[in-house]
Amino acid sequence: MATLKLPSTIPSPSEDCEQLQKAFAGWGTNEALIIQILAHRDGAQRKKIRETYYQTHGEDLLKDLDSELSSDFQHAVLLWTLEPAERDAYLANEATKRLTASNWVIMEIACTRSSHQLLCARQAYHAKYKKSMEEDVAHNTSGDYRKLLVPLVSAYRYEGDEVNMTLAKSEAKTFHQKICDKAYNDDELIRILATRSKAQLNATVNQYNNQFGNAITKDLKADPEDEYLKFLRSTIKCLTAPEKYYEKLLRLAINKLGTDERALTRVVVTRAEVDLQRIAEEYQKRNSVTLVHAIAGDTSGDYEKMLLALVGHGDA
Amino acid sequence: MATLKLPSTIPSPSEDCEQLQKAFAGWGTNEALIIQILAHRDGAQRKKIRETYYQTHGEDLLKDLDSELSSDFQHAVLLWTLEPAERDAYLANEATKRLTASNWVIMEIACTRSSHQLLCARQAYHAKYKKSMEEDVAHNTSGDYRKLLVPLVSAYRYEGDEVNMTLAKSEAKTFHQKICDKAYNDDELIRILATRSKAQLNATVNQYNNQFGNAITKDLKADPEDEYLKFLRSTIKCLTAPEKYYEKLLRLAINKLGTDERALTRVVVTRAEVDLQRIAEEYQKRNSVTLVHAIAGDTSGDYEKMLLALVGHGDA
Repeated sequence: MATLKLPSTIPSPSEDCEQLQKAFAGWGTNEALIIQILAHRDGAQRKKIRETYYQTHGEDLLKDLDSELSSDFQHAVLLWTLEPAERDAYLANEATKRLTASNWVIMEIACTRSSHQLLCARQAYHAKYKKSMEEDVAHNTSGDYRKLLVPLVSAYRYEGDEVNMTLAKSEAKTFHQKICDKAYNDDELIRILATRSKAQLNATVNQYNNQFGNAITKDLKADPEDEYLKFLRSTIKCLTAPEKYYEKLLRLAINKLGTDERALTRVVVTRAEVDLQRIAEEYQKRNSVTLVHAIAGDTSGDYEKMLLALVGHGDA
Repeated sequence: MATLKLPSTIPSPSEDCEQLQKAFAGWGTNEALIIQILAHRDGAQRKKIRETYYQTHGEDLLKDLDSELSSDFQHAVLLWTLEPAERDAYLANEATKRLTASNWVIMEIACTRSSHQLLCARQAYHAKYKKSMEEDVAHNTSGDYRKLLVPLVSAYRYEGDEVNMTLAKSEAKTFHQKICDKAYNDDELIRILATRSKAQLNATVNQYNNQFGNAITKDLKADPEDEYLKFLRSTIKCLTAPEKYYEKLLRLAINKLGTDERALTRVVVTRAEVDLQRIAEEYQKRNSVTLVHAIAGDTSGDYEKMLLALVGHGDA
């Protein structure tokens, strides 16, 4: 469930563009007006606004937002305004660059999007970077991470509900055997994670629990300091219980000494139209405080207002 | 260039269906009429015919063709009538089954189709088999073949013409180093083959030739008996010069003691609407005999007539 709130009547794209122009005009920028408009329009509506803005003002709205705003607020508004596929392409590209490299962001995009969404991100990547996403991921990662990440971003998983229980049982055994052998980068293990449908993987994870008495993610905690093992656990979480993965990501970002704004922004912006409601519920259950409250306590100014609007706090 | 010949005026799908029904009626089957219709309709037209046939006769045309025809002719007509994406899904699925297993067919589909065509085949695979293509390939292949095939079928390559010459030079060096080390299943080598655009790979192969004085496929002939090495050479050929790959496949299929009809049918049927003209030119250049002549000399009956029609011999 999304947290995005839309007003009962949506102004036309040209009205929105006119208002945005007003927000940019004169000496100061009217940030509240920008939030009031953009944080309450869905992907299709924002796309229309960008198109209309370009037609009437001959300039990319993103470029104007970029020059009018600054710091975390700017970053949140820009990421949010992008179409989901373009945004994923951008995030994945940043995650393959040396200075902003992040295996985590790549894994997150590969594992939490639907097959169709991931495909659209790969198409947007072609269009924007004149290369393929898997090409850059393969070229810029290495070792065990590469071995896991390349098939994850290349997957086009089956999305039906059908589950083969015999297969789930046998692949749960495979997982158990590999974990016992500490063969965490084993080909079979990666094959299963990178190619099976999410429904099938879920059945396998359940079978693991039934047959061996522990959650697979628990058995993967053999060495709590092992960074790759941590990564593997999160991959399984992203594939089978993304809301739990995101809850933890938010928790760590918010509790960190000096909030991790990049992570906080990324989760709110990429999930507000998808399942942020569900993530917020997980958050409250786990932290005994609402996500709104936690964000409000940890951020300030226009950045805070933007995030809270996206989390569904207040009126549209 | 395609070899498929269409009549100057195309009958409506309902007229075609009526004629097909006539061809099926009574004691014998009118094979000539079936060829006259189906072998001279393009993919979109055949799709329309199948839809119309189902609407008017309540039966899948493929099922009726299956029961009316037999042996190689039947196989050719059925494969041809399928939509390209469905056909690729079917061929790939057959190639992952134990009795009809073929790493070659999987590689051929992964490497000679456009990114969009391969994606459509993967979508058709979902729809028909309730699984993903890469899932079955990964599950049913092993060793070096699996290591190469899974990323090949999962690729969604960039298709623009842009080439990075610095990269081509450095990756040509990588190829050379790995070949010198006989590290034919090396991660880097597979990464390059499985993720780079075809234009980029072509530049790399050219750079290899320039820098090291030999074609890369020649240097990959170190051990002529090594089956995997043969497979690797063909993969590079499929990616950079598919018409040469197909010419050789046809040559071997036709010259074999007791023609390899499966391969012959597959090439003609899958390429007739794509580049069979170009392949036939290669064939004539290499064998000093036209492809039409070679096929006519090696096949007979309705099967021969069907193939010759698809190769563009005679009138539509």
